[in-house]
Amino acid sequence: MNLRNRILLVFLIVLSTISFSNATEIIHIKHTTKDITPIVREAINCAIEKEIKIVFEKGIYTFLPEYAHTKFSFITNHGNGYKSIAFRFEDFYAIEIQGNGSEFIFHGRMAPFQFENCKNIKVENLTIDWDIPFIFEAEVLATNKKESYIDVKPFTDGYSWKLKEEKISFPNIDGFSFDELGHTHCFDPKTKSTFYGSFGLHLKPDKVEKLKNGVYRFYEKLPKYPPVGAILAAKGGKELNRYAPAFQTQNCKDVVYNKVIIHHALGMGFLFERTENIKVINSGVYTRDGSNRYISSTADATHFANCKGEVLVENCRIEGMLDDGTNVHGTYVKVDEILNEYTVRIALHHFEQMGFQFAGQGDEVWFIQKPSPKRGVVNTVVKAEFINEKYTELTFKNKIPLSLSKDDILENKTWNPVFTMRGCRVTKHRARNAMIKTPLKVVIEGNYFSSDMSSIGLRGETSKWYESGAVGEVIIRNNHFVDCAHGGTNHAILWVSPKLNKKFNQTEIYDRNIIFENNIIEGFNSRIVWADRLDGLVFRNNTIKQTTNYPNQFPKAPLFDFYNSKNIELTNNKVEGFKDNITVKSDKVSEKTLEVNKNKGFKK
Amino acid sequence: MNLRNRILLVFLIVLSTISFSNATEIIHIKHTTKDITPIVREAINCAIEKEIKIVFEKGIYTFLPEYAHTKFSFITNHGNGYKSIAFRFEDFYAIEIQGNGSEFIFHGRMAPFQFENCKNIKVENLTIDWDIPFIFEAEVLATNKKESYIDVKPFTDGYSWKLKEEKISFPNIDGFSFDELGHTHCFDPKTKSTFYGSFGLHLKPDKVEKLKNGVYRFYEKLPKYPPVGAILAAKGGKELNRYAPAFQTQNCKDVVYNKVIIHHALGMGFLFERTENIKVINSGVYTRDGSNRYISSTADATHFANCKGEVLVENCRIEGMLDDGTNVHGTYVKVDEILNEYTVRIALHHFEQMGFQFAGQGDEVWFIQKPSPKRGVVNTVVKAEFINEKYTELTFKNKIPLSLSKDDILENKTWNPVFTMRGCRVTKHRARNAMIKTPLKVVIEGNYFSSDMSSIGLRGETSKWYESGAVGEVIIRNNHFVDCAHGGTNHAILWVSPKLNKKFNQTEIYDRNIIFENNIIEGFNSRIVWADRLDGLVFRNNTIKQTTNYPNQFPKAPLFDFYNSKNIELTNNKVEGFKDNITVKSDKVSEKTLEVNKNKGFKK
Repeated sequence: MNLRNRILLVFLIVLSTISFSNATEIIHIKHTTKDITPIVREAINCAIEKEIKIVFEKGIYTFLPEYAHTKFSFITNHGNGYKSIAFRFEDFYAIEIQGNGSEFIFHGRMAPFQFENCKNIKVENLTIDWDIPFIFEAEVLATNKKESYIDVKPFTDGYSWKLKEEKISFPNIDGFSFDELGHTHCFDPKTKSTFYGSFGLHLKPDKVEKLKNGVYRFYEKLPKYPPVGAILAAKGGKELNRYAPAFQTQNCKDVVYNKVIIHHALGMGFLFERTENIKVINSGVYTRDGSNRYISSTADATHFANCKGEVLVENCRIEGMLDDGTNVHGTYVKVDEILNEYTVRIALHHFEQMGFQFAGQGDEVWFIQKPSPKRGVVNTVVKAEFINEKYTELTFKNKIPLSLSKDDILENKTWNPVFTMRGCRVTKHRARNAMIKTPLKVVIEGNYFSSDMSSIGLRGETSKWYESGAVGEVIIRNNHFVDCAHGGTNHAILWVSPKLNKKFNQTEIYDRNIIFENNIIEGFNSRIVWADRLDGLVFRNNTIKQTTNYPNQFPKAPLFDFYNSKNIELTNNKVEGFKDNITVKSDKVSEKTLEVNKNKGFKK
Repeated sequence: MNLRNRILLVFLIVLSTISFSNATEIIHIKHTTKDITPIVREAINCAIEKEIKIVFEKGIYTFLPEYAHTKFSFITNHGNGYKSIAFRFEDFYAIEIQGNGSEFIFHGRMAPFQFENCKNIKVENLTIDWDIPFIFEAEVLATNKKESYIDVKPFTDGYSWKLKEEKISFPNIDGFSFDELGHTHCFDPKTKSTFYGSFGLHLKPDKVEKLKNGVYRFYEKLPKYPPVGAILAAKGGKELNRYAPAFQTQNCKDVVYNKVIIHHALGMGFLFERTENIKVINSGVYTRDGSNRYISSTADATHFANCKGEVLVENCRIEGMLDDGTNVHGTYVKVDEILNEYTVRIALHHFEQMGFQFAGQGDEVWFIQKPSPKRGVVNTVVKAEFINEKYTELTFKNKIPLSLSKDDILENKTWNPVFTMRGCRVTKHRARNAMIKTPLKVVIEGNYFSSDMSSIGLRGETSKWYESGAVGEVIIRNNHFVDCAHGGTNHAILWVSPKLNKKFNQTEIYDRNIIFENNIIEGFNSRIVWADRLDGLVFRNNTIKQTTNYPNQFPKAPLFDFYNSKNIELTNNKVEGFKDNITVKSDKVSEKTLEVNKNKGFKK
């Protein structure tokens, strides 16, 4: 049966199954072992209704890029560009995708799902994977600092790479390959987590030499050499290694991902931009159990940029990413030029934010004027004119502050979510378990966390990623933190570290009101809380145990470390097992209002 | 005065100058030395009418990319991508741009003009140039084949390049540079034309070493080394070296470019796609007189892909391009799959044709079925569904041929122009003066041609560029050909050389009916006509003189060389000065109907 006949068959089935009772068009996809991409594309293109349900017969489906829908796509925190998209939805009122436990196996450079300007999205019971991952993995057999080389044994089973002209290229699929190993991290084969003391490398060997028995020698002078026995996982150079998330959800409302598993993605797992009300529940981002793969998504598992309403991540297994477990944030833009009393031209600044919609008509915006990082005047956007991917002209309802000047920053007040992360397991990955940047209520409870950098990070910043903003109400409770911050850099369980550029006061309060209670923290490192410019921390009823799985990497680091902060309260906590310095360190400013009461195992 | 005020001023002037008498909105642009890009962008965006005239006060204007309109653009024969566009016009009924002799100086990666789906376009009296060309130029001082190096002295005045980590990068503007020298050609400083015996190189030196006095040594093993004294002009690697033409005109009708001079372009000069009725008159593509630049447009000066109606290129000066003077062609697509009795999925094949519209609703299409290259059945497109940049599904009015099979080819019958090139001077550039591929009437008359490959080429092909098609009526008269085909490869004045892939008969007639008369041909090489699979050539009343400016490069080559052809007539021509073999060579097939009469200086 040729493709057209297959498609016709699909539609005959479709026609016979449309349910008019609720105006939802139901499209049944019969299982086939052939490329399903064109069938899915036609099914979506030919939908008559704007409320559709696509039901997959349970099975394993192959998605090839050849006949995919293509579109130039702005994707925040990824490379913008012309993408091959399997499921592209635009302007639908309701979409349900029922996978019935199916597996969707992608091949090559593809963006699995893009939802734009849709409502009532529900995706259920499906698994996403790639036939060949966009990753190079290899075991480190030896290193030689003096002669600047590493001997590695690359994984071959299921991987695609080759040595050509003394260089490794991968994955060499449909003409695409990375021309450098690029961003590389070390994993521990015993735990599949990032290695104790691990650190990021950027590999671009001068020469790769083939030795015997599948071993290759990479010649490169490195600042540090990876540990012998570690598994290197490389994801290519930064210009190309974030093709697309598995799910891009942009300008949508009321979205539920339930029982959706992502074993691999060429970027983030679940990315949400300017979307309202989101649930990612009973889902996961992790490699297949028993596989030889270490990397699931090559960037954050979940990521929420300028979202609003209620965001819930619940009961999810999140492992093996090369970046954060979750990142919830808004976007800082800079004033480029004041065009008149009502209008400013603003500029995006991170190269992977280009094209991102900072604000639309009707949005309230905070003006934040140097040198204070305080959210200042609120004004409402009446017109947003997209000039190009970097610049937008915003015209406001009221006059803008007379004192506004170039390089002051703006933050969107309307698009910030209430955020809850509950009952998740976030482990075995690079970076932070959770990055939290929203002024509205945040609840992080009942999770199991293990991280190689800080477990929970708060960092509104205008230094690199331009992610806003300061928190105002954060509750972190009943979580279990195990061996967090086990990478080679100095991090903490809770890390509060705003980083506005130097034109802003570097000691003024930024974040506010964190309750951290009833958590169990087990680990070999000391640092628990490391906070700068924080007003209000209640740290109570937590149990902190030092384990001996590994040596404490920073034995001189204090458990608690406060700078430029106030209203810090450490009450009724229990610390066990610490042999080294158990201390509360605070600068003069923080000291003034610091209260340390009724704790076991440590004093002020 | 800030930008917004400047724009307001422009519009006050605009408002006072709108002429309602003919419903044309007239926009006056006052001269400024500041970046004019945002003013032009706003002027176009804010136009109320769909019939506009933009009048520039005479002056030199600077166009920067920072605040340019940006758009993902399909541009045939260039790199598709997200472009910064100075003048972007879409869906206008009439546009007149009056430059009043102004110069538009562009900076960095910019697409100066894009017209899409517009009618009645008239652009007059303006000059386009770049502040810094996207070219690396250098004089060859020495070469050493044994040690595989070239010593060169790069041009510095007005150029931008640097040596870093043993590599040359250029032009290093706004973060963009080519990572290789890439496509390079040799020019002669005495004539500013391509060097006698010149050839294309692809330069990517292993190492570049700085010597004394501004001299650099390029280490690279090359198949041939450039002549000492030549000027190398490099335009970067092929993935990036065709950013955009100076003028892209797509899906438009009734277009006149009059007195428009292009001194530099980051791709072609004038590109037309699926456009009807075009005049490029009294215009030019050439470097500024007296400048040290050798390269005007980095690709064809004029290029017409699937155009129709009347196309006229008249009284133009065309020099210094790194590709053809003109190229008039359609597009061959291959049958990818027959989907049903009425529908085929077709595929584009050249990487720079991706996204090109082969055919639209209502177009007539020829089916060309292996093994014959004959245009077969004509059918009318009733639906064209764009699948992605490579594939389109075409549904036809009548059933498609039962015998149609994969890899048969289709040619658009509707979109072919009548083409006239008259009174032009086409010299000092790489490749052909004119490539002609249209079945309708072609007149090439009164031109001055000098080329480094063949002067006039006919080559419908499915081997690389997939350009259709076979000619049916070509008149070449009263032209003056001087030192043509002076490059290092074996070419002719008139070169007829179809190149359908091997699934097609390699001896069957392809092109038809050429009259070549009253031309003067002066040159040091022998080859005048080299034709394969041609039915009908009247070559009469021409004067051919051998000059002695340079040695004949191919003294054994015949003046006339025919393969697989018929109805060739050489009458009343005069040949002077040839000392070597003056011969008419023809294979058995061509011999049968060959007539050679009343010529002076040679016989059959």
